[in-house]
Amino acid sequence: MHTLTPLSWQHVQLTSGFWYERQLINARVTIPTVYRRCGETGRLAAWRLDWKPGMPNEPHVFWDSDVAKWLEAAAYSLITHPNAEIEQRVEDLIALIARAQQPDGYLNTHFTVVRPQLRWTNLRDGHELYCAGHLMEAAVAHYQATGREHFLQVACRYADYIAKVFGTGEKQRRGYCGHEEIELALVKLSRATGTRRYLELAKYFVEERGRQPHYFDLEAAARGENPHDYWAKTHEYTQSHVPVREQRVPVGHAVRGMYLYCAMADLAAEYDDHELLALCRNLFQHVAERRMYVTGGLGSSRANEGYTSDYDLPNETAYAETCAAIALCLCAHRMLQIEADGVYADVLERALFNGVLSGVALAGDTFFYENPLASRGNHHRWKWHHCSCCPPNIARLLAAFGQFIYSQREDELYVHLYAASRAHFKLDKHAITLSQETNYPWDEHVRLRFHLEAPAEFTLALRIPTWCRAAELKINDETVPLYAALQRGYVCVRRLWESNEVVELRLPMPIERVYAPPEVAANRGRVALQAGPLVYCLEEADNGKNLNDLFLPRNAKLTAQFEKGLLGGVAMISGMAQRRVASDYEGALYRSAPPRYEQVSIKAIPYFAWDNRTPGEMLVWMRGE
Amino acid sequence: MHTLTPLSWQHVQLTSGFWYERQLINARVTIPTVYRRCGETGRLAAWRLDWKPGMPNEPHVFWDSDVAKWLEAAAYSLITHPNAEIEQRVEDLIALIARAQQPDGYLNTHFTVVRPQLRWTNLRDGHELYCAGHLMEAAVAHYQATGREHFLQVACRYADYIAKVFGTGEKQRRGYCGHEEIELALVKLSRATGTRRYLELAKYFVEERGRQPHYFDLEAAARGENPHDYWAKTHEYTQSHVPVREQRVPVGHAVRGMYLYCAMADLAAEYDDHELLALCRNLFQHVAERRMYVTGGLGSSRANEGYTSDYDLPNETAYAETCAAIALCLCAHRMLQIEADGVYADVLERALFNGVLSGVALAGDTFFYENPLASRGNHHRWKWHHCSCCPPNIARLLAAFGQFIYSQREDELYVHLYAASRAHFKLDKHAITLSQETNYPWDEHVRLRFHLEAPAEFTLALRIPTWCRAAELKINDETVPLYAALQRGYVCVRRLWESNEVVELRLPMPIERVYAPPEVAANRGRVALQAGPLVYCLEEADNGKNLNDLFLPRNAKLTAQFEKGLLGGVAMISGMAQRRVASDYEGALYRSAPPRYEQVSIKAIPYFAWDNRTPGEMLVWMRGE
Repeated sequence: MHTLTPLSWQHVQLTSGFWYERQLINARVTIPTVYRRCGETGRLAAWRLDWKPGMPNEPHVFWDSDVAKWLEAAAYSLITHPNAEIEQRVEDLIALIARAQQPDGYLNTHFTVVRPQLRWTNLRDGHELYCAGHLMEAAVAHYQATGREHFLQVACRYADYIAKVFGTGEKQRRGYCGHEEIELALVKLSRATGTRRYLELAKYFVEERGRQPHYFDLEAAARGENPHDYWAKTHEYTQSHVPVREQRVPVGHAVRGMYLYCAMADLAAEYDDHELLALCRNLFQHVAERRMYVTGGLGSSRANEGYTSDYDLPNETAYAETCAAIALCLCAHRMLQIEADGVYADVLERALFNGVLSGVALAGDTFFYENPLASRGNHHRWKWHHCSCCPPNIARLLAAFGQFIYSQREDELYVHLYAASRAHFKLDKHAITLSQETNYPWDEHVRLRFHLEAPAEFTLALRIPTWCRAAELKINDETVPLYAALQRGYVCVRRLWESNEVVELRLPMPIERVYAPPEVAANRGRVALQAGPLVYCLEEADNGKNLNDLFLPRNAKLTAQFEKGLLGGVAMISGMAQRRVASDYEGALYRSAPPRYEQVSIKAIPYFAWDNRTPGEMLVWMRGE
Repeated sequence: MHTLTPLSWQHVQLTSGFWYERQLINARVTIPTVYRRCGETGRLAAWRLDWKPGMPNEPHVFWDSDVAKWLEAAAYSLITHPNAEIEQRVEDLIALIARAQQPDGYLNTHFTVVRPQLRWTNLRDGHELYCAGHLMEAAVAHYQATGREHFLQVACRYADYIAKVFGTGEKQRRGYCGHEEIELALVKLSRATGTRRYLELAKYFVEERGRQPHYFDLEAAARGENPHDYWAKTHEYTQSHVPVREQRVPVGHAVRGMYLYCAMADLAAEYDDHELLALCRNLFQHVAERRMYVTGGLGSSRANEGYTSDYDLPNETAYAETCAAIALCLCAHRMLQIEADGVYADVLERALFNGVLSGVALAGDTFFYENPLASRGNHHRWKWHHCSCCPPNIARLLAAFGQFIYSQREDELYVHLYAASRAHFKLDKHAITLSQETNYPWDEHVRLRFHLEAPAEFTLALRIPTWCRAAELKINDETVPLYAALQRGYVCVRRLWESNEVVELRLPMPIERVYAPPEVAANRGRVALQAGPLVYCLEEADNGKNLNDLFLPRNAKLTAQFEKGLLGGVAMISGMAQRRVASDYEGALYRSAPPRYEQVSIKAIPYFAWDNRTPGEMLVWMRGE
């Protein structure tokens, strides 16, 4: 396939502004915080393999993945925010992990010290291959950041061992993991090492999934359990209800599903598999068009941490796990490379600015696991969680943020996201430095400049977000017609570029009212506010209690103003709305006098910044028209 | 206390119209149906006491109460709808029950044949005294209906035995039942037999409730359980978290609570206890003003089948058990006798016409346990339920419906409800026959006539429902000023009445829009329709799917029309509203184009009559203004 290649996080440096600030806090606060919490909870010590029954901090089945994601985040950060102390911790931890590897290559704390006799006996629930996948991703990141191969070798030894254990051979187990992750990790490992065996193992895991007789049923029976007693009740939970190529609808646990679709996209690209690509496209589209919150959050139900039915998007009880929004970004990013279509960049941007970023406090040290779109005031960030997948996941995403901004393909350069940055790359043999200056999303101006050794002919493809209907493009002060030339969300300018020419893009961000389709019962008679890529919300701190008493009339005028001192600097939307008068009640609960409304001013802040002040109510979809 | 006395069901005959029809179907269909289901499920055979472990139909702890409530219903019906076959079944069943009574007076199928060793060891969950209470109510009804004393004697022997077992004496158990019922039953038994000991036992059960050390904790510990492992987590569930006289807020299981408040009201009247009365008044008021559905339903949560917090009244997940609405009627009726205040009659009427009556199908043979105020089309009546408290409960309520209509006190006659009926009674030594002619609630006219042996001076107190703001009263064609004379919801006319004088009351029933206070989150931006005492709802059968796409503007004109052929004859409300256009979607889930609305006609039917046609969606609180 004629895919794009992302400019790697190694070659894209954020230089100022919105994402720079997030990445800085991530490096300074979040990464050290996650390390400390991993230490406090025993996740680091677990690798010493000296836990004994009766001791506290029994290593849990998914602990290895938390540590691996931290390592991955720390590795990325070694390049963007070098820090000797972090580097030392990384190396010490890798040494500890290397020593924990068993002679056969196996590497898992829980199944080595807690239940050694149960290795590979419960792939459905045990997270064993999932943890392995995160170790592989961490090892690849560490190798790319440092050039040192020792961690990568540990990961390869483990992958080699897994390749021996699993497969369709006579003495092999025909299993796969209940929590997808190793599939995409093996593709990464294959690409980093050039080892095709890992790619084939990834393909095996994807293709084997959901076949009959069902592996999870067989292994349950082998454990002496009745497969029908499965706590999740359905193999849809793990996307193994039918073989992957028969899956037409996104089902089950949202993170697991998106990680599977990531691997499907990777394999489609690697094997030039158009059937797999079409499946992946349809699944992604189904999510984006019927099962995604306006914040890019996924998962309507706590019960399965995942999907329920089309258009079932309750606000207060939204699960919308931070990891699911991150997984959506990872999948959108992969599909974007294959299809070069702005619809993926739109979803990527929506999730990044809203449902992902809400997962971490502005201060970087507390976290949301769930990201509801309405709260009565009882939902707050926590320091840690027994299931702590989200904090290290957001840490690794922010640390490698640079990878999302640009892609290249032969003599084309794609700009997907607008963020002040500097990128160094080779395009069609031209060494290029690109600087992007912008205060996006607080300002509509973006300015790009290439530094070239000599004039070079290539195509610059600039994404025009779907929310922007009046973008303007100038090159060296000359207006370039834009909307007529728009192809799949990108305006492509092919010319002979000279050094220091100035590309100026203006992306006006008027305040938009957003409506959900009638099928979304929760949002009937409701409206959300969006400005540029940012979804807004009302908070009690600005609007008092009972946010659902507010009503936004169609003609209410709204204005946005950047407030430097507010929430680290955000644009606030202000305007007049109606508030139902809390009437002087005289007993009767129900009465025929219609409610009265008074004019009140309202203020909305970006959704990602909520719950960073006095705790209280929050509402994204307000009553209105 | 100067309380009213209800004219008994024995002396009030329904003659035509709304409640007559319901009582007829109750006698002809519901009572035989409940008997048949009790037979099919083993509830009748259980009284043979020949169940052995391993046999099907193990008698459940609350089965006795289902049978007892059927007996009570059948006994009332022997007077209003004499039926030799039913009478024979009643007598056979009573004989069976009498033979099941143990030598010491104990009478319970489950704890005699299934767990004989566990008698009185789990009052919290075992329903033992609750079942005893229902047997007592049934025995009193049978005695009053037939004058025969044998069942009453069985009940008295059981009550005598219970009075020996429970109390504050040295060798007595200081227990009480987890499910209130026996308290109000003992008051009935005391009144029927003139035995003060039963009244005192009722008082003991009420006063002992919730004292420390907590009896349920002590008995749990005695069973070898940790009291903290109580499945309901809190003694609020059984209203025993604090002593009754310290209870300020209605809590826990709604039926249990209302049965307790019934007994509190009874005891307040019997003992002239104004403190207890004030408590009861406040608890009732708290329910009616903050925790009651517009249908008179109670219980917002399935988890405790009861209360959550003030104004928490979700529609689709409303529990609103039929029995809870019935219990509310029983309590309102008792408070009405004590306070002679229309607020209780208003609640009584609201619950009877809506949340109670919805519990049984128009055909009388299927039942709702829960009565939600909105349904996506998946809530339907069932033939039977493992917990079948509601069908016999509604059967006994309808069979004794006459008791709710009138009360007397010295030379005053109160008319609480409007229903075509004939009543025979003595008022201040005058023998009076009162005939009430009306087609209420389908018609606004009520016509009362007294048949007197000689002219008699007395007061006629007519209730003017709060929903009626333009009532008119004429006596012998002469208009009587009404609203100026209104006292606590009643207009009182004192005069020397002659036989066959005509009292004509007109109660106009315009269609009213009903609004909930802003505190009720579920009903923000929503409106319900009511005409007279009837709450209306939209059904899919009349309005298509997606009822929440409809919006009722303030100026929409609505008209009501009685439809003879519809649902056994009901008034239907029609009018124009707006329906959100289900737009042709082109991918994007969220967009800035506001929704479009089209004019459509809507039709609403009385809530009690829903789910009697093609199954589908239902909605009481529609979007509107």
